[in-house]
Amino acid sequence: MQRIGFIGPGIMGAPMAANVVRAGYEVVGFGRSERSVERLTAAGAKVASSVAEASTDVDAVVTVLPDSPDVEAVVLGEGGVLDSARGGTLLVDMSTIRPEVARAVAEAGHARDVGVLDAPVSGGEQGAVEGTLSVMVGGAADDVARAMPLLETMGRTIVHVGPSGAGQTVKAANQLLVAGTIGLVSEALVLLEASGVDPTKGLEVLAGGLAGNRILDRKAASMLAREFTPGFRVELHHKDMGIALDAARAADVALPLTGLAAQLVAAAQASGRGHEDHSALLAVVEALSGRTDGRKGD
Amino acid sequence: MQRIGFIGPGIMGAPMAANVVRAGYEVVGFGRSERSVERLTAAGAKVASSVAEASTDVDAVVTVLPDSPDVEAVVLGEGGVLDSARGGTLLVDMSTIRPEVARAVAEAGHARDVGVLDAPVSGGEQGAVEGTLSVMVGGAADDVARAMPLLETMGRTIVHVGPSGAGQTVKAANQLLVAGTIGLVSEALVLLEASGVDPTKGLEVLAGGLAGNRILDRKAASMLAREFTPGFRVELHHKDMGIALDAARAADVALPLTGLAAQLVAAAQASGRGHEDHSALLAVVEALSGRTDGRKGD
Amino acid sequence: MQRIGFIGPGIMGAPMAANVVRAGYEVVGFGRSERSVERLTAAGAKVASSVAEASTDVDAVVTVLPDSPDVEAVVLGEGGVLDSARGGTLLVDMSTIRPEVARAVAEAGHARDVGVLDAPVSGGEQGAVEGTLSVMVGGAADDVARAMPLLETMGRTIVHVGPSGAGQTVKAANQLLVAGTIGLVSEALVLLEASGVDPTKGLEVLAGGLAGNRILDRKAASMLAREFTPGFRVELHHKDMGIALDAARAADVALPLTGLAAQLVAAAQASGRGHEDHSALLAVVEALSGRTDGRKGD
Amino acid sequence: MQRIGFIGPGIMGAPMAANVVRAGYEVVGFGRSERSVERLTAAGAKVASSVAEASTDVDAVVTVLPDSPDVEAVVLGEGGVLDSARGGTLLVDMSTIRPEVARAVAEAGHARDVGVLDAPVSGGEQGAVEGTLSVMVGGAADDVARAMPLLETMGRTIVHVGPSGAGQTVKAANQLLVAGTIGLVSEALVLLEASGVDPTKGLEVLAGGLAGNRILDRKAASMLAREFTPGFRVELHHKDMGIALDAARAADVALPLTGLAAQLVAAAQASGRGHEDHSALLAVVEALSGRTDGRKGD
Repeated sequence: MQRIGFIGPGIMGAPMAANVVRAGYEVVGFGRSERSVERLTAAGAKVASSVAEASTDVDAVVTVLPDSPDVEAVVLGEGGVLDSARGGTLLVDMSTIRPEVARAVAEAGHARDVGVLDAPVSGGEQGAVEGTLSVMVGGAADDVARAMPLLETMGRTIVHVGPSGAGQTVKAANQLLVAGTIGLVSEALVLLEASGVDPTKGLEVLAGGLAGNRILDRKAASMLAREFTPGFRVELHHKDMGIALDAARAADVALPLTGLAAQLVAAAQASGRGHEDHSALLAVVEALSGRTDGRKGD
Repeated sequence: MQRIGFIGPGIMGAPMAANVVRAGYEVVGFGRSERSVERLTAAGAKVASSVAEASTDVDAVVTVLPDSPDVEAVVLGEGGVLDSARGGTLLVDMSTIRPEVARAVAEAGHARDVGVLDAPVSGGEQGAVEGTLSVMVGGAADDVARAMPLLETMGRTIVHVGPSGAGQTVKAANQLLVAGTIGLVSEALVLLEASGVDPTKGLEVLAGGLAGNRILDRKAASMLAREFTPGFRVELHHKDMGIALDAARAADVALPLTGLAAQLVAAAQASGRGHEDHSALLAVVEALSGRTDGRKGD
Repeated sequence: MQRIGFIGPGIMGAPMAANVVRAGYEVVGFGRSERSVERLTAAGAKVASSVAEASTDVDAVVTVLPDSPDVEAVVLGEGGVLDSARGGTLLVDMSTIRPEVARAVAEAGHARDVGVLDAPVSGGEQGAVEGTLSVMVGGAADDVARAMPLLETMGRTIVHVGPSGAGQTVKAANQLLVAGTIGLVSEALVLLEASGVDPTKGLEVLAGGLAGNRILDRKAASMLAREFTPGFRVELHHKDMGIALDAARAADVALPLTGLAAQLVAAAQASGRGHEDHSALLAVVEALSGRTDGRKGD
Repeated sequence: MQRIGFIGPGIMGAPMAANVVRAGYEVVGFGRSERSVERLTAAGAKVASSVAEASTDVDAVVTVLPDSPDVEAVVLGEGGVLDSARGGTLLVDMSTIRPEVARAVAEAGHARDVGVLDAPVSGGEQGAVEGTLSVMVGGAADDVARAMPLLETMGRTIVHVGPSGAGQTVKAANQLLVAGTIGLVSEALVLLEASGVDPTKGLEVLAGGLAGNRILDRKAASMLAREFTPGFRVELHHKDMGIALDAARAADVALPLTGLAAQLVAAAQASGRGHEDHSALLAVVEALSGRTDGRKGD
């Protein structure tokens, strides 16, 4: 595998593409904005003028797109990846989308002899830059094997979790756990502060026991300081909670805490915090009790 | 501080008392059951025939009791600790009870020149045996300083988190976080299994990222195996969720995820799982979707 | 039955006592505040100087008290109703308290040959004044029969729903239904307004179909106008949701919607709306989405 | 308006079409199944062989279809209503679909000079047969005026609630209220039964006060008897809760009780009750506490 089409060089996609170039692959990239083109050039990629061009005569196409409809348009649409890629090309979709759409895209690919993997990531912009993303991969074992060297240029932990759609399902599970945990940590913190407990020491104790989690490890300090610079934006997590609930519906399961956590994330979005870090859920939980910045009233 | 009264040598209390004896303190213990008396003797403690006897002529009294009314009875009741202890005695209540009761007990103690600390623990039976408990301490700084050598015989991490009641509040926060996290992990697992994802690999990926937590670290394997031997029993966690909600009420805050998680724990209790490990919340979440042991139907 | 002790002539109790006087009973009342004494005098009752006096040489004692501890103190305490009432007296507790406390009070009464009924009411101040309250009665059938003429002076619908505590359980069920329904109507209204629907017409349609309920019938207009003058105060409903959750715990059942609704009521209380009508839950639901008075932002 | 195309003669659509015929309109109907064709013939309608035929040379087209994608396909697809209808035709979509799709359909219609109303109904099969449906109409006032005589053949209460999509939003609000209310009534009932209260008398008292609602009025008896013959099926309500949550997302509001109620409906669906009446939510709430048919255990 030598020549890679790369579609979607945004905040995550651009540094990911740069890592692919750095590893010695020939990258032909496409992005809609001028900003994207600059990023691709800076990364050392060739710039294609269309999805079709980025999908023609390549060994693999990587897509990093915002949402399910974008993937449907870019892959399944007229002049899309499947219209342009030759048989035997591998499509690696690293967007976070609905598992059902991932399965549909995989089926459409297979009908054209294009192997398809769903390979969403976690680890944020920093992980994308440093090539240390976690990648959850769904698809056929031989396609995963083929893609592995490519994926290893972008991520550190790459796990094949099941058939098509499985990568997206694990990502959905990841997002519901993260949102729920931020919510619970927020509730714990509000309880401590409202009860006159030293919140720094309180969270420290919590972090050290069975209640410990990565949110406490990484975000306790910024949450205590009400510092909500992203990081991962509320608006993206709001989108992802929609995906998680859709995945639950498709899998015919009921997830009560997830259903409620999704509404708390929706509240963060609705109250104008869409561009803040998802830890701003704390502000929603506080406001519910008429509190701001650790104090009663505003 | 040399002579310690020790009231409540149960599953947690007995090994805690043994560690105090081992550290060279003279321990006078009291427990209501024959089993308790045996445990005290085995631990090398003297056996008192009443709460009063265990509270007389001692430097400190340690209580490890099941619930708020037990502490009220033993400490505030006729012939209780405060009736018997001389001025200057220190009362260290290591039970998990309502923060409000802890504050009331502290006030009653101070009126009799008895310093009172609330010092609930986490770390389970194993931590009690090994003397590696985490202890969350509420009370006056000088009382905490006095108690420190004693507490260090039982725990490894001892943190003074605030005034009277603060220890119980942190414990309540701990319990809501643990219950909520078990619930979220259960929902993630049910989603994975119902979607055809390899659950072992899926949980492994989740544990490695921002969704990671101590429940995944310590209980993923037993949850995957539906092995619910305690550990920490559902019935105790059910009691503790009541304390958490009472603490929220007393602090005048609203905790929506906690409110829902408390009902899921109540469901585990109500469906006959009171004596199982709290990770049996998984069985509740599964049953909600008509699933058992990772499969549809029963 | 001719001579009635009446303890607790507050906003509800005073007009209830007045109706008993009006029906020809001899009423000996006791209240702690000067205001209470005035009310009793105005109502035509004799004024007792203690609970004991109001419980001595009477055929029945009626209590209308704020919460469970008040009933425990007044009935079970030293110099309380059970210390003073002669055998054969009937105690009719019309307070809203925990079903478990009602059962304990009934047991204590029976041990002294005092029949006890729990008989909480709904219908508000207006119902108390007009004598049109609904009364949910728990206790023995013959005690209910004895009390019926007395109860009929205060209420219009008097239903014997089961043994001791059953009246309080039905009241708890009433309160969870009312809080939950106000919450749901609030969510429906916020959805309508945020979607550009005419909210008045929208609620009108909802009220006419399967979604119809008494909250829409009686409170839609005031909710649309954000007019939250009580009516029934948030702080009382907050107390009652605590009773409902305690009742669920005692009955060993899990009530998820109730658990969440209780936190929304707690949010109304915590955000300073304790003295407003319980329909102010709408303001909580609105604020969660960054909305005020039917509009985005504030 | 004389000649009406009618697409979707299912359980609801067939009796609705029959009422249109009965009122003197000429109806040209189209349905995909043989059963549909029989129904149309029985109703006295002419049978068209395609959507196009049913949309050609008619004054209005009525659609009664299962879900959003069906409406998109039938109206916007190739050979669909908008491809076939002449300028000036009125499209009245009486399906329950996402408000956003209703708005998109309306826009597409207006681009072709086809007026579009969203006009979902409530009242069930019985209402459809008797012509007593409630109809919630979104769209332009003059289109509503034109459609009114036609709508009055099918419904008794026809309310114009706002612009395009408003009808669907009100329907979504209706469905969240109904699901939430069934859930609350179920929780109340489980609490009563588990507490030893006479459930029939308990529900009767609740129905008479501020807690009263149409579910108690119409379904208490069948719920007490665990008689879950539809009525309105769980699987349809499950679909509709998805619409309600999508509508909330589109309107940028957070609806916590709705989010949880949606998961309880999902649980009913997931546990094999999709074809039962939506009041089978009671069985979900019961099972959560290890109860069946009003009793502990099974």
